[in-house]
Formats: sequence, structure tokens, C-alpha cells
Amino acid sequence: MVDEVLVKRDDLTAFCVAVLEKLGVPRRDAAIVAEVLVVADLRNKGSHGVARFGRYVDGLKKGIMLPTDQSTVVKQSPTTALIDGGKSLGQVVGHRAMALAIAKAKAHGTGFVAVRNSNHYGIAGYFALMAVPEGCIGLSMTNTAPLVVPTFGRDAILGTNPIAVAMPADGEPFVFDAATSVVPRGKLEVYDRQSKAMPMGWAVNAKGQGTSDAKEVLGNLGKNLGGGILPLGGEGEEFSGHKGYGLAMLVELLSSLLAGGAFGLGTFSEGGSANIAHFFGAIHVETFRPLPAFRRDVRKFLDEIRNGPKAEGHDRIYAHGEKGFAAERERLRDGIPLGPKVVEGLAKIGAEYGVPWPG
Amino acid sequence: MVDEVLVKRDDLTAFCVAVLEKLGVPRRDAAIVAEVLVVADLRNKGSHGVARFGRYVDGLKKGIMLPTDQSTVVKQSPTTALIDGGKSLGQVVGHRAMALAIAKAKAHGTGFVAVRNSNHYGIAGYFALMAVPEGCIGLSMTNTAPLVVPTFGRDAILGTNPIAVAMPADGEPFVFDAATSVVPRGKLEVYDRQSKAMPMGWAVNAKGQGTSDAKEVLGNLGKNLGGGILPLGGEGEEFSGHKGYGLAMLVELLSSLLAGGAFGLGTFSEGGSANIAHFFGAIHVETFRPLPAFRRDVRKFLDEIRNGPKAEGHDRIYAHGEKGFAAERERLRDGIPLGPKVVEGLAKIGAEYGVPWPG
Repeated sequence: MVDEVLVKRDDLTAFCVAVLEKLGVPRRDAAIVAEVLVVADLRNKGSHGVARFGRYVDGLKKGIMLPTDQSTVVKQSPTTALIDGGKSLGQVVGHRAMALAIAKAKAHGTGFVAVRNSNHYGIAGYFALMAVPEGCIGLSMTNTAPLVVPTFGRDAILGTNPIAVAMPADGEPFVFDAATSVVPRGKLEVYDRQSKAMPMGWAVNAKGQGTSDAKEVLGNLGKNLGGGILPLGGEGEEFSGHKGYGLAMLVELLSSLLAGGAFGLGTFSEGGSANIAHFFGAIHVETFRPLPAFRRDVRKFLDEIRNGPKAEGHDRIYAHGEKGFAAERERLRDGIPLGPKVVEGLAKIGAEYGVPWPG
Repeated sequence: MVDEVLVKRDDLTAFCVAVLEKLGVPRRDAAIVAEVLVVADLRNKGSHGVARFGRYVDGLKKGIMLPTDQSTVVKQSPTTALIDGGKSLGQVVGHRAMALAIAKAKAHGTGFVAVRNSNHYGIAGYFALMAVPEGCIGLSMTNTAPLVVPTFGRDAILGTNPIAVAMPADGEPFVFDAATSVVPRGKLEVYDRQSKAMPMGWAVNAKGQGTSDAKEVLGNLGKNLGGGILPLGGEGEEFSGHKGYGLAMLVELLSSLLAGGAFGLGTFSEGGSANIAHFFGAIHVETFRPLPAFRRDVRKFLDEIRNGPKAEGHDRIYAHGEKGFAAERERLRDGIPLGPKVVEGLAKIGAEYGVPWPG
């Protein structure tokens, strides 16, 4: 065990690329996977960063994820495309699909791409943000493994199904990137590790009833005994849990159903494939308004919100994406803090593949 | 005062059309406005039904809403359009804009239309559903008068900003139609009338702090003293109120900012115009998959969710739209129940314009 360490972005990226290459991933694709993971760590979304690297290594070893890009465009029109991911790495497929959506938007105003038969693609916001330097609004969403219980239901049938939208603005862009569950699974894990009672309204037990026992919920999820995380809005309809449930449905419908992929309990259910589906979109701002005017007005709007009067006891209103970009600036300068468990896991992987850990 | 009465859909529609015609609205447009209002009542969304008719009559009388369609297409591409509503009736502009989005989608795969300088357009879901018989997925959203307080803020700067998405399916379509606030203003009014304490997590007082006092919140909102309704997810970040806040921002950005319209406190702020903005979209399913296969799989997915095991104490999981369609079937058969206050208001309007109330 080692203490928390600070690792430079380039060192961490190079390490991941080198391991992925040993696993047969071409350098260009390895760079995409590493970039998506490391950007998550830079923006303080550690649950989707290199802490997950082992899962990708495992997926490649077991053949759940294929090292070379097998994705194919099954069908397309000037503004749309359907891609079969061919069990390739989710980040690689996602990058290709989003780039295609952006190209279509720049040529024809809008571009939308649905993807089936892919794998976990990392942070949804990464792909949405790809649109911003191209003068486009970007959209990215994905279904995920079933963890979320529909309103009045007992079993986890839906994924945490994140939605990300990014918009160009003077200064930092606007980036909404949120799971449609009330909290991510990682939040439950923190309460479990600390043996603390969770707030009521985050999760339900095997009977579908509210509970504050994180260990019980995680245990039940692991054994498919029922219960799980609640949708945004919480339990029942009093705080509009049905809206979060509806947003999770939207993600599943736009990604998996539109792509003809696996849905609900169908994801992760067949041996050898995660069967994940994504949906990407891009809207070329200039088809509506001159980009500089849009960027200026978005900044003005975000500033109007941020500069508004604060609730007693608070001194700051955040724009979406703001906290992540602040973390990124700091970590590009100082390095990315990684906990001992993450470092240990990465160093072990490095040893297995003959890639020295940079720490 | 009269008791609750049941009014036939056609009678209610004809009444509204006749009054609107007296106010100078052409028959075809009057029929659209009446239809959007009456469909809200049919689907048990009474807060957006004929109970609001007086506001439209007032708007027309005061010139905030213009009786004839002044909307113009300012800019368009094969897949996008920007419309200036010209202060016309929101339902008329919305209907025109959504029809344009659908036509573009059927010709080019997708269609997106941003609208500025419009008025309140009724239920968002009405427009999203227009896409379904055309084999399209429909999207409709709008900004509204400021009622919602951003996370860690004190003042209502955002609207309840609803998002609606409708999808074709065998049997009934899927219709998500939800304000991005935790509850609508109407919910607070119910608690105020009953002098009941609201659940904590719905609203904040003038200091931006949680309160259960509906009367106080409504009073403060009316006098711009601070406080208001919370975004979906509630107060602070514990239950992810920042996600609801982000969804409300998305609606404002896609409608108003993309259309170059008024935003935040700019709506309803200038004399003579509500300055409301909308955003509509349509995706032609056939550009991705054969429509029959999509409709079949959506039904299968919705049934998988609805037939899943129920939480203890509950015997039903609802698909989005299901409750509204059930109410519609019942009300088409039995008539639409209207409370005494609504009937009184409508009868009074009828008397003013020489249109007999059908009750």
C-alpha cells in the first residue's frame, strides 16, 4: 500500500496507452480510451476514471470487449446513422459515432447517431463536449447495467442512464452530464465503506421500500435479490420520482430501442457482450444563429444565474461543468490525485504487462 | 356557484372556438387553441386546460397575444428552422413549428425548430405527440415565467421549463411530459387552499431556505420577494437538485438561447409580450429502423417494465402517458369534469362574448 499520489496527466495517459497496446489495441484507439478515462479524473469524476481501468483490461482479456474497432455503419442518411459497435471498446465506438454526428451536423444542420452492441464508454460528457470546438451543441447518452428501480417497482431494471449536453459559450462551455438516478452507485459504496446510514430517498430494499442501509442494497443488487437505486426524484411520486424514471426510459428508448439493441435486463445478460447502446447528437449552431452571438448570450445567461442572489449559508451558484473545469485546471498543473487502492491496482496491471507504473 | 359538471369534449371545444372567433382568431387557429386546451383536460392535466382559458382571453384583449398568426420563418435549412412567433398565440405558433419539424424529419431524417417571441403554448406533450402518427419521435420544450430557484440560489430565475418526448409504440405511445421543477405551481396552490404543510424539498422561502409554507412561497413569488419552487431533485445537492436545475437550464438554452429570444428574468418582463421561447424536434424512426419493429420493441420494453415485480404496497407500475390516456378514454365517453369555479369563469366569458355556455 502507498499513500495518495499525484500523477501527471501525460504519464497516466502514456501508462494506459502502453497497457492497452500490449492487449492488442491499436495506438490511435488506445489513445482515445486513455484520454476519456484520464479526462474523467482531471474533471474530478474519479468513479469513471482510471479506477475503472482494470475492468477494461478484464473485458479485453475475456473477449467481452474486442481490441480492434469492429464497428460498422449499418444504415445512414445525410443526418442520421445506425452503428453496430461489434463489441468494440465503448470509447472507440463512441468517439467514431460522435465524430460522425458532428460531421453530419456541419454538413446538414443536425446529426444523430444511434449505436448498439457496444461497451461502457466512460463519461457521457466527453462525447458531448467533442461538439463544442466544432460550433455545435453536443448530446450523448447511454444505457448501462440495470441498477435503478422504476417508480412503484421492486427490481432494478433500468441503468443509471446518463444524459450529457454541451453547449459552446464564451469562456467555459456549459456541460450538463448527469445520471438519471438520484445518486450514482459509487455514492452508496462510500456510505457502505463508512458504515453510515444513507439519506432516505436514495434506494429501496428487496421489497421495494425505502432504506438507509447501503450495504443491504449493494448486496441485494449483487445477488439480484431485488431493490436498487431510485431514479432522480426519489421514491414514489411525492418528489416526482416518476420524472427521473421517465428520463431513464428516454435514454433507453433513444439509445437501445432506436438502435435495435438490448434493453432493460437484456444488457450484460448474454455471455460475451455487455450489449450497451448509446445515442449521440449534434446541432450546428450557425443553422439557427451566428455562433459568436450564441456564445455571448449563453455566457450572459450563465452569468445571470451565477451572479444571482445566494441562499442563506451559501456564497456560490455553479454553472454546470464549472466545478469540473476548475478541477481540471488544478490537476493539469499539480497532477491527478490517485488513492492507494487505485495506484495498487494500476501498478499490478503494469507489472502483468511489463509496463512500469510512473509513480 | 354550480356543482362539478361533466361537459362533452365537442361542446367544450365549440365553446372555446366560438369565443376565440369573437376575439378575432381565425376559425382554423381557434380550433388549434381549443384542441390543445381540451386535450389537456381530457388527459387529466387540468392545470393546463380550459381553466386557463381566461388568461388567453385576457392576453388577446390586452394585445399580449395577437389573434392572427404573425409568426415568420426567420431562417431555415433542410433540417432546421428559426421562427419568430410575432406575439401570436403559443398553440398556433407551436403547431406550425412542430408541423415544420415533422415535415423536415420526413424529408431529411430529422427536423428541429427553435421559436422565440411566442406565448404560453399549453401542454408540451401535445406537440411531441403530433410526431407519432407520422412515424416520428417528437420533442417539445418551452421556457416559462420565472418560478424556479437554481441550486444554492435565493430567487426564482428559471421557469418550470417542461420537456416532452413522445415515441410511437404498438398500442399507446410513450409520452414523457414533465416540468423540470420538483412540482408544478398548481401543487403549491392546492396546499395553500387546504392550509396544509407542504413536504420539505418542494420550495424555498425568501432566504432561499427550505419551507413547508405554501402560502408564504406563493406570496413571495407574487411580489418578487425571493424564494420559489425547487428544481427536480429538491434543495441543495443531496438529492441531486443540481440535476433538475441543469435540466431547466437545458430547456432555456435550447429554446430561448438557440432562438435568440428572451431568457431568465427577461420572459414576461417587457410590457406587451410574454417573450416565450420553444424548441421542437422530430426524428424519423425509419431512418434508423423499420417502424413496425421499433413500435413492437417499444411496446415490449414498456410491458417488461410494467409487468416487473411491484414494490410492497403497490400493484401497478405505470408507463409514461398511460394514466393520461386512461383518463382520456373515460372522459371521451362520460364528459370532462369541470369544477364550479372553472365553469363560473367560462360561463362569464361566454356571457361577455355572447356565446352560450353548453352546461
